[in-house]
Amino acid sequence: MKVSELGEFGLIKRLSQISDSSKGWKGRWGQHIVIGIGDDTAVWRSQGLELATTDTLVQGVHFTLDTTTWRELGWKSLAVNLSDIAAMGGIPAYALVSLALPGDTEVEDVIQLYKGIGEVADRFETVIAGGNISYAPLAVITIALVGVASNNHILTRSAAVPGDLIAVTGYLGSSAAGHYMLSNHLRFDAKTTNFLRNAHLEPFPRVFEGQSLARHGVRAGIDISDGLVADLTHICEMSRVGACIEIEQVPIHPLVKSTFPERCLTFALSGGEDYELLFTANRKTIEGLKEEISCPLTILGEVTTDKVGQVTVLDAKGSPLSIDKKGWDHFVA
Amino acid sequence: MKVSELGEFGLIKRLSQISDSSKGWKGRWGQHIVIGIGDDTAVWRSQGLELATTDTLVQGVHFTLDTTTWRELGWKSLAVNLSDIAAMGGIPAYALVSLALPGDTEVEDVIQLYKGIGEVADRFETVIAGGNISYAPLAVITIALVGVASNNHILTRSAAVPGDLIAVTGYLGSSAAGHYMLSNHLRFDAKTTNFLRNAHLEPFPRVFEGQSLARHGVRAGIDISDGLVADLTHICEMSRVGACIEIEQVPIHPLVKSTFPERCLTFALSGGEDYELLFTANRKTIEGLKEEISCPLTILGEVTTDKVGQVTVLDAKGSPLSIDKKGWDHFVA
Repeated sequence: MKVSELGEFGLIKRLSQISDSSKGWKGRWGQHIVIGIGDDTAVWRSQGLELATTDTLVQGVHFTLDTTTWRELGWKSLAVNLSDIAAMGGIPAYALVSLALPGDTEVEDVIQLYKGIGEVADRFETVIAGGNISYAPLAVITIALVGVASNNHILTRSAAVPGDLIAVTGYLGSSAAGHYMLSNHLRFDAKTTNFLRNAHLEPFPRVFEGQSLARHGVRAGIDISDGLVADLTHICEMSRVGACIEIEQVPIHPLVKSTFPERCLTFALSGGEDYELLFTANRKTIEGLKEEISCPLTILGEVTTDKVGQVTVLDAKGSPLSIDKKGWDHFVA
Repeated sequence: MKVSELGEFGLIKRLSQISDSSKGWKGRWGQHIVIGIGDDTAVWRSQGLELATTDTLVQGVHFTLDTTTWRELGWKSLAVNLSDIAAMGGIPAYALVSLALPGDTEVEDVIQLYKGIGEVADRFETVIAGGNISYAPLAVITIALVGVASNNHILTRSAAVPGDLIAVTGYLGSSAAGHYMLSNHLRFDAKTTNFLRNAHLEPFPRVFEGQSLARHGVRAGIDISDGLVADLTHICEMSRVGACIEIEQVPIHPLVKSTFPERCLTFALSGGEDYELLFTANRKTIEGLKEEISCPLTILGEVTTDKVGQVTVLDAKGSPLSIDKKGWDHFVA
């Protein structure tokens, strides 16, 4: 059945049923909801420092249904917002889901999309508290996510200080490698293909790691959505500092290194969409974090007083490299 | 200059400057903002019962740039969200603005769009606390708006009780008449044309009226976005009651009546997008409200125990009318 046959209100009813059965309602945030889906607004009992973000995925720009399943699309559309909350060290709580869809979209596809959103929502105890459905000639998914600061501590882009070390969670470049594989219809062994596909289509936001960072006293951080150099530049600009990183230290997953030996560095420096956390802190704090966080934590370089607003990338010999493409800009190809 | 020449980050900077100079930052909600535009999320100090809503305007579906200016588009995109907060009797506070735009959009047009958003934001002391910009082949504007309940009282769709009277603010059908005029390229005298154009493109959300309703003890309400019959049906379904209204009582503006004598009733019953408030209350409450609210308040009918979930419209002789088109459904033409 097409959504145009079921109609807007029929679709809302079907999606509400999925939402109602999600784990989030029984969790810590579900308890604070006064009004959920179905009224003019959602209503909850608020508390403390609240964080709010929004992100959009546009068909043909951020995804293509040729290579992305509806479930994966749902996962990613919420995951990218969760990553913003993670970048502040916050706890995600309430999501508003706006779907703009073609009338000939299959209802079953929308349900899969919603299930993908629900999967990652359940994983992080987030409640789908409301949203909006409308017609559009192409699919546009916009989610707004509200979270809460843990113990009133937050990570910002403006808190880096000279002398801090620069560190990152996990591996970089895997998402760009996955995007390259999918858009060029490349095939590798099953393990590699799955790894790359998941890295690009089902990023796992570092929500718990972000909370650990905030708890351990980290105050400057960002998630890597635009690319390592671009996002580190955001920190440098907002903190009015410089940054110097060693290219040899940039963590690249062995499967990405072996599959794309030539391109993996470009993927890692400017590919974007890794949704890892990039942060600055002193060495003692980072060593303490390594004991608590299960994913890799890698020190890449240092925050400097010179070259304010700029990132310097040093090669193996300590010489500055020229980085062409700084990262993802929505309007500049 | 096109946005593709300025780039995403350049555009964000320009829009941030407009936002920074808006009145909202100096108002009651600006004081609670800890982090505004430019970080991974917005951050504010929350309080009490919080309301959240989101709404999307899609080019070619909800608006056409042939008849809508960018400034009007900005106004309407926030106004429709403000109306949702109004429908709960809440106080709007923080907005997240997601713009998806073609790369060849003129920067000046985006600035006009943002100024339109800012105008209505300033009018209701709402702060643009964050947002997102991305590329799309057509313009899609999604705003998420967070508000606060006044004195913890809210209006819901589920609180109507039999015996309550049904009332509405302002006039109905003016927006649909404006849409009809614009889409059919009709021309009337300047006064009529302006009135109809504004009714459709610059709806004035009943934010203050909504707060008055909540303060006077009204507990059931909705804003008229889908159409009188459709939105009253939402109340009937959610409250498990019936509703009976008299067509003679439906308030239609004299300019709409005189310009569209044949169509004005259809516009009023099922046109939608009037963004007036439809609510139920006892007669004494409504009489009390009439003294406080400056716009017209009209009693249309009564909440009933029979025909649960249904709206009955009576003609001048008291006979039930058959209403064909119940209102706006995004997927059913």
